[in-house]
Amino acid sequence: MKFKEINPSPRTLMTPGPVEADPRVLRAMGAHILGQFDPEFTALMNETMEMERYVFQTQNKMTYLVDTTSRGGLETVLTGAICPGDKVLIPAFGRFGYLLAEILERCGADITLLEREWGTVFEPEEIEEALKKDSYKAVAFIHGETSTSMMQPLKEIGEICEKYGALLIVDAVATLGGAEVHVDDWKLSACISGTQKCISAPSGSALITYNEQIGEIVKKRKKVEKGIRTADDVNGSLAGIPSNYLDLAQLEDYWSPRRLNHHTEATSMQYAVHEALRCIVDETLEARWARHSLNDKALCAGLNAMGLSIFGDIEHKMPVVTAINIPEGVDGKVIRGTLLNEFGIEIATSFGPLDGKILRIGNMGYSSQKRNILILLGALEAVMLQNHVKIATGEGVAAAMEVYKNAEK
Amino acid sequence: MKFKEINPSPRTLMTPGPVEADPRVLRAMGAHILGQFDPEFTALMNETMEMERYVFQTQNKMTYLVDTTSRGGLETVLTGAICPGDKVLIPAFGRFGYLLAEILERCGADITLLEREWGTVFEPEEIEEALKKDSYKAVAFIHGETSTSMMQPLKEIGEICEKYGALLIVDAVATLGGAEVHVDDWKLSACISGTQKCISAPSGSALITYNEQIGEIVKKRKKVEKGIRTADDVNGSLAGIPSNYLDLAQLEDYWSPRRLNHHTEATSMQYAVHEALRCIVDETLEARWARHSLNDKALCAGLNAMGLSIFGDIEHKMPVVTAINIPEGVDGKVIRGTLLNEFGIEIATSFGPLDGKILRIGNMGYSSQKRNILILLGALEAVMLQNHVKIATGEGVAAAMEVYKNAEK
Repeated sequence: MKFKEINPSPRTLMTPGPVEADPRVLRAMGAHILGQFDPEFTALMNETMEMERYVFQTQNKMTYLVDTTSRGGLETVLTGAICPGDKVLIPAFGRFGYLLAEILERCGADITLLEREWGTVFEPEEIEEALKKDSYKAVAFIHGETSTSMMQPLKEIGEICEKYGALLIVDAVATLGGAEVHVDDWKLSACISGTQKCISAPSGSALITYNEQIGEIVKKRKKVEKGIRTADDVNGSLAGIPSNYLDLAQLEDYWSPRRLNHHTEATSMQYAVHEALRCIVDETLEARWARHSLNDKALCAGLNAMGLSIFGDIEHKMPVVTAINIPEGVDGKVIRGTLLNEFGIEIATSFGPLDGKILRIGNMGYSSQKRNILILLGALEAVMLQNHVKIATGEGVAAAMEVYKNAEK
Repeated sequence: MKFKEINPSPRTLMTPGPVEADPRVLRAMGAHILGQFDPEFTALMNETMEMERYVFQTQNKMTYLVDTTSRGGLETVLTGAICPGDKVLIPAFGRFGYLLAEILERCGADITLLEREWGTVFEPEEIEEALKKDSYKAVAFIHGETSTSMMQPLKEIGEICEKYGALLIVDAVATLGGAEVHVDDWKLSACISGTQKCISAPSGSALITYNEQIGEIVKKRKKVEKGIRTADDVNGSLAGIPSNYLDLAQLEDYWSPRRLNHHTEATSMQYAVHEALRCIVDETLEARWARHSLNDKALCAGLNAMGLSIFGDIEHKMPVVTAINIPEGVDGKVIRGTLLNEFGIEIATSFGPLDGKILRIGNMGYSSQKRNILILLGALEAVMLQNHVKIATGEGVAAAMEVYKNAEK
């Protein structure tokens, strides 16, 4: 048995995740391992919490990491906040809305799905209508729906949820660190993100935050393990949490000054997230949002100039994902494959009803760079021509360069 | 807000985990990110599976990683193989036996705990007796119980389980890659390990393997998510799996040629495990077991010569963890703290009934080195003397050196 060392071919990752990790983040992971209760390590964990609060724009004490990919973070918060039988409204406008329902159904929640055509977002009135009709413990919402490239405005939804006494739990996996997310101002009860998109670290950790209202629920569901429980540890009054590993109450204790032993914190991923957050602090959120927005503008200008049509409700398009309608007679997989194999640039196809209909281009985190936008547009033009798509040649890159030039003025 | 870059103080990690990652592994994590469906990346995943089969000593097709720490791997396999109402026997001889019960209780299994004094292991007859009395779907067992430093012989238990038609699911988190584990020869139905112990990668990934019998159960519990299911995907006949993230059926599909989208594989941890397994392949398992065994012998000789007493049933002590009884009048936390703060060497205390009674020394993976054993013994002597423990001075290190000298002959 003989295998070679890890030596990946050069790649420019323009998918909606995973994207390129910041080289500073990759270097941070090379640091040697510290014990999980070493004061130096717990100090890093506390710093991570502090920087995370900035990135989420929140004062929530409970703002920390779960040692899973983003999907596990979603499940941890949802199954910690929602008890069996709780009624939850899920306005779904793409694949990941259904994922929230899948997760919650398994823990015995009573789900109401509000569905909408893929490529659109919800009007605040639709949510208010639903909350008027019936009483819900929570509304679970996707912020950036990468499967369709749509972004749901949340400010008004937060106000509506507060008015009707429903928790608002938001999946910001695809937007945090790239598009504006304001957990406190928007009155989000909880928010969850991942590391492999606009945060620009490797996949493998989830960022979570939740308010005191959810903290109170978690307290009532707490149960300390037999092997380490003391006489002071009594079980809470609400139904226990279904998973041991994704147990929000135990994770909270582990991240609290009590540091009650649960899992062994993923050391190198902790280093990675710490450094990724430090990159965001250095750049500032405002500059980061502006960078993504400018690159998005250049990308869209380039695609339009080339004559490719952008999918969905443009007004609500995510600034960090752009979907194009696959021109007739062309196989999206061929476009994607040629870009990857010949140019070393990766973009994505889609799922469900949009499978084969759109191609998705990510503009996220470290991958969100002028250089990447320009080389992608150039490569895409060549591949489209090779596939006999009638496009305006020489226009795409030029239009994007014009956007950058105007922005410098 | 201003935080410094990651720059940990020098540490020698002699706890029962996490231990030092091999420098080759830390370097591998610096490689840039590949997309999760990039053929180069899926090829790496397949290589990881192949090397894992060697390390587990199995032919099981289903041998792959879960993107959680080891605890999440345990929960994934247990909740995938065990349905609500299934009767499971858990012979517990320390904290981590109780953990298996905690995990299984939450998924509605019907648990029978067989308890034993901490510091001992089970006789095969005790297990046979229990299986004769009642019928069980499975027996869940810890191989190396780090909380007590005991290692349970499993070969005979495997034969007994087979005879009585019970699955045998084994937690080898602390032993795999350091002590002998033979999944197929010992007739283990499933085996789970982590990365942060004898595998010597960072924490954050779990190694799992299971046989066809469990594969059949998983197939019957399968349910494909709404966002990506096709007309061919029908739900299985058995109760669904409680968690979406820790769903063995979906993970199996993700690691199979179908590569059905589930989570986003943790790229850098995948690189880390790939390289850690390559280190084991290079060293060979036999050489690795011999290295741990020799270092264990030297450590015990040193501790004995110093006059410190080793805890528990010595005959069944793990070769990768050694517990010493804390001498009377000494605070274990002070010993541990001085070793960490003055010498940069980390050892561990214990849990539950052994809290404050024993100190645990790890001898695992990359940390299992002659140099580390010798400097630990020297430091321990100094700290014990400082705490007025009467020990034989100058004897510990000398005895260990004698063991190494004899081994070279």
